[in-house]
Amino acid sequence: MSYKIGELIASGKTKLVYSLDNPSLVLLKFKDDVTALDGKKRDIIMGKGALNAGISAKLFQLLKESNVDNHYVEMYDPTSLIVEKLEMIPVEVVCRNIATGSIVKRLPISEGTVFDPPIIEFFLKDDARGDPMITESHMAALKLASKSEVEKIIEMTLRANKVLKSFLASKGFTLIDFKLEFGRRNGRIIIGDELDPDCMRIRDSSTSRVLDKDLYRKGATLEEVKKAYEEVYRRIVEA
Amino acid sequence: MSYKIGELIASGKTKLVYSLDNPSLVLLKFKDDVTALDGKKRDIIMGKGALNAGISAKLFQLLKESNVDNHYVEMYDPTSLIVEKLEMIPVEVVCRNIATGSIVKRLPISEGTVFDPPIIEFFLKDDARGDPMITESHMAALKLASKSEVEKIIEMTLRANKVLKSFLASKGFTLIDFKLEFGRRNGRIIIGDELDPDCMRIRDSSTSRVLDKDLYRKGATLEEVKKAYEEVYRRIVEA
Repeated sequence: MSYKIGELIASGKTKLVYSLDNPSLVLLKFKDDVTALDGKKRDIIMGKGALNAGISAKLFQLLKESNVDNHYVEMYDPTSLIVEKLEMIPVEVVCRNIATGSIVKRLPISEGTVFDPPIIEFFLKDDARGDPMITESHMAALKLASKSEVEKIIEMTLRANKVLKSFLASKGFTLIDFKLEFGRRNGRIIIGDELDPDCMRIRDSSTSRVLDKDLYRKGATLEEVKKAYEEVYRRIVEA
Repeated sequence: MSYKIGELIASGKTKLVYSLDNPSLVLLKFKDDVTALDGKKRDIIMGKGALNAGISAKLFQLLKESNVDNHYVEMYDPTSLIVEKLEMIPVEVVCRNIATGSIVKRLPISEGTVFDPPIIEFFLKDDARGDPMITESHMAALKLASKSEVEKIIEMTLRANKVLKSFLASKGFTLIDFKLEFGRRNGRIIIGDELDPDCMRIRDSSTSRVLDKDLYRKGATLEEVKKAYEEVYRRIVEA
């Protein structure tokens, strides 16, 4: 398919959104920027945009094949995806299989604890308030999503987790946790945003090597971060 | 009934627990201490223990009559209740009808917003971590309560809210929010702890005067705090 790219609709830390001649679609362009600590730490890794675009496309396609609704339509160029235009819900949905990161600081849970069933957490996207954790009850009170939409979001997150976990395991990766964002289209709840090592914690299953943005958060060189993303791309997309 | 009081089993900021000759019961003694800011602010208000014991007894009895299971058995003396011995769950369950306090700082919700349905929040009782908010998902992961127990806790909290709200309205009070604690006895989930102006926000419905611990938190004199608790006692217990 050919598309005519329109104006810039939204500009995030690592992605740009452009309108298209088809009003039900948008172009999602992945930048080479890498950020952490709510944007306080910021760098450029040449080629990262293409790696994340490719990994996201692959994983969204995989979810589609397993009937987990998401916005992916097709790749447009190496750094851009054509996706359905959604009315986004400003909430980060985190699904945790193994305890690490903020949860072991916040709660009396030891690093490495296995969650079965996985833990699902909601964080309101609100930089000024430090993205506070919210409950299902707050989702309704803040008019972010109805009770039945919240149930749908939880159900889809758990199904996405199963599909991703087992696919990544087949590639020799362990899925520690990941973050999803959801939107609506014609009243339907659909997964949007991205799905790559910027928003997933994945480790090599045999060596436990970290292969995601935690490297950057914890001070690895940009070269090391890029190498990890390239390895994920190679083993997931090219294999 | 007569009881033989045994040893001190537990000592909290505002209450003491003693064993009794009947091993399925304990004595809950209300102290005159008033504390705020995680115990950093602390004073004595002579007579407060008796006021809170009396108000708790009245409200627990009211809940019993409405089949909302709680630990209350009877008053022992003006500052002590006989209650069922529970295995307590270290979680504070907060039910909010109207937005005020921490929620308007944490989230983009304006003071005075009415929640219908009410908001329910869970906080882990963990002083070292500042009593962090937790979700239903964490309750299971932390092995605090099973999924069905969490559902029971939510259902009982909503029923308690209905009963308390309508009773307090009949006495000219508005129930802003309140905190419950739950425990288990023979596998049953039961409301424990206390139920008085230390853990409820209540206002006079016509004048909006604050009649609870917020007065103390916000720097009112001890005399003013005592007057408010006395007024609640008079209108609830003696009326």
